[in-house]
Amino acid sequence: MAKEIERKFLVESDDWRKEVDEQSVIRQGYIASMEDRAVRVRILNQDRARLTIKIGRGGMTRDEFEYDIPVGDAEELLQAAFGTIIEKTRHCIRRGDYTWEVDVFAGAHEGLIVAEVEMDAEDEEPALPDWLGREVTGDDRYSNFALATAGLEGA
Amino acid sequence: MAKEIERKFLVESDDWRKEVDEQSVIRQGYIASMEDRAVRVRILNQDRARLTIKIGRGGMTRDEFEYDIPVGDAEELLQAAFGTIIEKTRHCIRRGDYTWEVDVFAGAHEGLIVAEVEMDAEDEEPALPDWLGREVTGDDRYSNFALATAGLEGA
Repeated sequence: MAKEIERKFLVESDDWRKEVDEQSVIRQGYIASMEDRAVRVRILNQDRARLTIKIGRGGMTRDEFEYDIPVGDAEELLQAAFGTIIEKTRHCIRRGDYTWEVDVFAGAHEGLIVAEVEMDAEDEEPALPDWLGREVTGDDRYSNFALATAGLEGA
Repeated sequence: MAKEIERKFLVESDDWRKEVDEQSVIRQGYIASMEDRAVRVRILNQDRARLTIKIGRGGMTRDEFEYDIPVGDAEELLQAAFGTIIEKTRHCIRRGDYTWEVDVFAGAHEGLIVAEVEMDAEDEEPALPDWLGREVTGDDRYSNFALATAGLEGA
């Protein structure tokens, strides 16, 4: 099990586009969720897939259990996902010791751009790029889970 | 993904004990569940662990996605399981082309004994051992999920 410690921001300008080191196309969906936990399946660039269990809600830190699974299984699991399949292109930008991930959403959430940075401890203070907008760390409305289930009854 | 096609029975006599080919100790719990699906973690004989997603409820057949995971992860996931951790000893009994699994529950469900047989198709008709009692296939009260969450609000 790993700890996922991250801060999340909206994005204010397009200046990040000049700094992109690499990018990947992500499709993901949720198989189950309850209270503080969610089980997610993700396909990366059509050739790798992962099953992830995240436990802990709100705040910066969550427990994360992540396993590679066959892409064929992931496709079948995505068909059983509830809510919307999230499609986004992830852009990685390395700055000092940190990697910023800028997710540009497509499909149902076209127009949304969110930047995240993963840290090793909650008290780290990565330098914040100028192109960041408002911080939304811990704001469940911007969780991928909320985006996948927006509009669902009870979600 | 595999299809899990199985029939399940209560057990009427102890005669199965003479036929046991092998046995293993199982601890398992549920990480999440929704409607027709459940995510389960299981530790076998303290030295192997698996994460399983089952989709489909009632009836004989469910989709099953199963992955080996590190035992240490499984122990941590069990701590995050909701409801009761199920403890049981599984006894395998081979009869012709079929393997019967007789689960003797311990802990919260001490006294319960359930026998299952896995098949390749719903129309197969494995010979039924004399020691079987009432069939409970599709009876959700005897699902391991129901046993794990018995007494929980809303379960």
